[in-house]
Amino acid sequence: INSEDKAPLREFLNHLNISDVADLIYDYEDYEEVIIENMAVHRAAGVFKILDIGPQKRIIKKMPPHKTAELLNELPPDDRTDFLEELPKAAIRDLIKLLNHEERKITLSMLGYPEDSVGRLMTPDYVYVYKYQTVEEAFATIRKVAKNSETIDVIYVINEEGELIDDLRIRDLILAPPYKRIEDLIDGRIIALNVHDDQEQASQVFKMNNRVALPVTDDNNILLGIVTIDDMFWVADEEYSEDIQKIGGTEALDEPYLDIALHKLIKKRVVWLIVLFLSEMLTTTAMTFFSDEIEKALVLSFFIPLIMSSGGNSGSQASTLIIQAMAIGEITIADWWRVMRREILSGLLLGAILGVIGFCRIWLWHFMMSYGIIKDVYGEHWLLIAFTIGFSLIGVVLWGTLSGSMLPIVLKRLGADPATSSAPFVATLVDVTGIVIYFSVAYIFLQGVLL
Amino acid sequence: INSEDKAPLREFLNHLNISDVADLIYDYEDYEEVIIENMAVHRAAGVFKILDIGPQKRIIKKMPPHKTAELLNELPPDDRTDFLEELPKAAIRDLIKLLNHEERKITLSMLGYPEDSVGRLMTPDYVYVYKYQTVEEAFATIRKVAKNSETIDVIYVINEEGELIDDLRIRDLILAPPYKRIEDLIDGRIIALNVHDDQEQASQVFKMNNRVALPVTDDNNILLGIVTIDDMFWVADEEYSEDIQKIGGTEALDEPYLDIALHKLIKKRVVWLIVLFLSEMLTTTAMTFFSDEIEKALVLSFFIPLIMSSGGNSGSQASTLIIQAMAIGEITIADWWRVMRREILSGLLLGAILGVIGFCRIWLWHFMMSYGIIKDVYGEHWLLIAFTIGFSLIGVVLWGTLSGSMLPIVLKRLGADPATSSAPFVATLVDVTGIVIYFSVAYIFLQGVLL
Repeated sequence: INSEDKAPLREFLNHLNISDVADLIYDYEDYEEVIIENMAVHRAAGVFKILDIGPQKRIIKKMPPHKTAELLNELPPDDRTDFLEELPKAAIRDLIKLLNHEERKITLSMLGYPEDSVGRLMTPDYVYVYKYQTVEEAFATIRKVAKNSETIDVIYVINEEGELIDDLRIRDLILAPPYKRIEDLIDGRIIALNVHDDQEQASQVFKMNNRVALPVTDDNNILLGIVTIDDMFWVADEEYSEDIQKIGGTEALDEPYLDIALHKLIKKRVVWLIVLFLSEMLTTTAMTFFSDEIEKALVLSFFIPLIMSSGGNSGSQASTLIIQAMAIGEITIADWWRVMRREILSGLLLGAILGVIGFCRIWLWHFMMSYGIIKDVYGEHWLLIAFTIGFSLIGVVLWGTLSGSMLPIVLKRLGADPATSSAPFVATLVDVTGIVIYFSVAYIFLQGVLL
Repeated sequence: INSEDKAPLREFLNHLNISDVADLIYDYEDYEEVIIENMAVHRAAGVFKILDIGPQKRIIKKMPPHKTAELLNELPPDDRTDFLEELPKAAIRDLIKLLNHEERKITLSMLGYPEDSVGRLMTPDYVYVYKYQTVEEAFATIRKVAKNSETIDVIYVINEEGELIDDLRIRDLILAPPYKRIEDLIDGRIIALNVHDDQEQASQVFKMNNRVALPVTDDNNILLGIVTIDDMFWVADEEYSEDIQKIGGTEALDEPYLDIALHKLIKKRVVWLIVLFLSEMLTTTAMTFFSDEIEKALVLSFFIPLIMSSGGNSGSQASTLIIQAMAIGEITIADWWRVMRREILSGLLLGAILGVIGFCRIWLWHFMMSYGIIKDVYGEHWLLIAFTIGFSLIGVVLWGTLSGSMLPIVLKRLGADPATSSAPFVATLVDVTGIVIYFSVAYIFLQGVLL
């Protein structure tokens, strides 16, 4: 790779699959621009577009400007726009200057659409035919433009005004007699995306309709471009990454973990940590409020972490289950009552199971204590303590599953992202109320005895 | 829909998009089989395959056998296999009897591949040509079989033994002169999946190679079928759902939340809840161990929930960030040291921020107490208590981020699923050690004073 004669390297690279070249680039970071430079430019573009943003930036920086220009002009417009929007404004301007007139126009128009809109994903390289043409004429068009289209599995039919009339599968064209008119082949069932549609919405449309590409139109039904299913993969990836990060109690990173600057990483995490910390301070307030009870029955305090975390765990379970089901469309707001019914039953049962285990644990320890195996901290009222723990667990677990499952639905109803009701958020909410539930149950069983 | 004359209904259904028909079925559950029965059978199959398993089962049960047979025979083999494997063994046997000879053979062979393998996803409906054929002959083949293929965007080239030689895009065929031989068009760069490959692996291959379909071969390179990208969408969905559910501390449900039987739902949740509950009992043991200290300085116990949950929250954040980054391939085991370095820094900083806030809170309360606004519980040693809380927070948060970030990597190294280190799991782990850290710091500051 270091030798002056690049011919063998070129030969080698042109026989690899693009995914293997991408791996090579990750492994030989120091030579990444040498690798890209020594490939045929259309294959270099294929490799470049699947790289992470980090190597992409470095390669563009390290390559001579004429190579950069070649590469950028060769990139599919949607991938180019994706790459550009990761860069600072000044860098975008410099790079756009390198594009030829045609590509510059396309890129500038795509940068005009809001981020996360379908407009940013679409490619203008597709095949369209007019409805008055014949199959033979259509094939002539296809031969002319097929080299530059992302897919020719589907052909789009427009009228003189550029309005989208229908789509046609290439197989229908191949099977049709050459003299037949396009308008006699179409069935009028067309699914199109609006250029301002949300990308997540578009990904749902793809999933439900089994298409490899969908046409994109503006508000006047003018065909602007197409979106292909492989771009949807990355949309789905991003969507899920955001959901998972939010469930973990962080803001969405929007950048790979290892690439994001440390101060940004901390900023994304600290906000929620502080919010949770301030809310959790209410537990201290609650404990201070019950300080007389704790002083009288110190043993009660030993179980506080156990009770609290059981509520938190069952709440985390419930909220992630519901968030996940809402994310893939299994549950809508209208299902709240069905969810609530299930969670009341689940909460009662799960709470009862943990309650019985907790009860048994105290019973067992009591025996060990009464035989002097371990130090006696429960005293003569061990049975009442065991009942307190058991019933508190039922209450806390029920409360945890209920609030964990309802919170995402309520958030959705209020127009917020359900994934915001992260596991830590639910756990904190349940912690504070858990202490109140615990001491209330303790009052019922222990008033006049220990309290 | 209730009227005897079904012609208008049929007319109406045949003009809807299949995704709209699917919505209709969800809205009118009582008529779901009527809707399916009154559609052209190839469109009915299109609707049926995008329905959830619940309605699918009901429709098959409610339809007369001859209609069921028609529908099942029309379904693409991969979707049919998917549906069948959700049913009990006896039901599979009955339904397979309804298939015609050819479809039965295909389905039985696909059911023979392990679940989650590429074999279960593949469809045998694709176009193949022999390498010695000409472009013209290839088109003749395409015209003959195109009606039944899922995609003809890509054509597969085989030799006389049925071994896969290469793939060819239809555009290259359209652009080539009719007399040219296929073997002169191919470039020998082929990416194929093995029939036993894992589906998740296959989904990565699709993502990295920008293909709409990939060929599937056996160990002898014999072409068996193809997998199309739209099936990968569902694989990705399932994969992410499992990850999210595990992060929330449940076993993967494998069924939609609203459809899964309640006893199964509880079984999937209770195992982890019990494991966490038993581990969390260690907090009670730890607190009992420190009972003398708590008795001497009751005020220390008020802060236990706050300290514990801060560790748990920072741990949940770290572990979900790492799990997510590992799931989409951004982080591998080899990166552990880079992750650790980042998390030590993050943990120290996040801990310091929370520590300062905690310190200030005690200071503030001390002023309110000394002016008699609230009851004095800190006493004369408030400053030492404030230092204890502050430094404990640094320690606990650092420990939380460290164990949260390293656990997924360790699990992966041991061959387990990183997502098993769920938010509740990390929180519980950190809870127990958090108490130990807290009381150790308290010893340093308060020994001889309060303790």
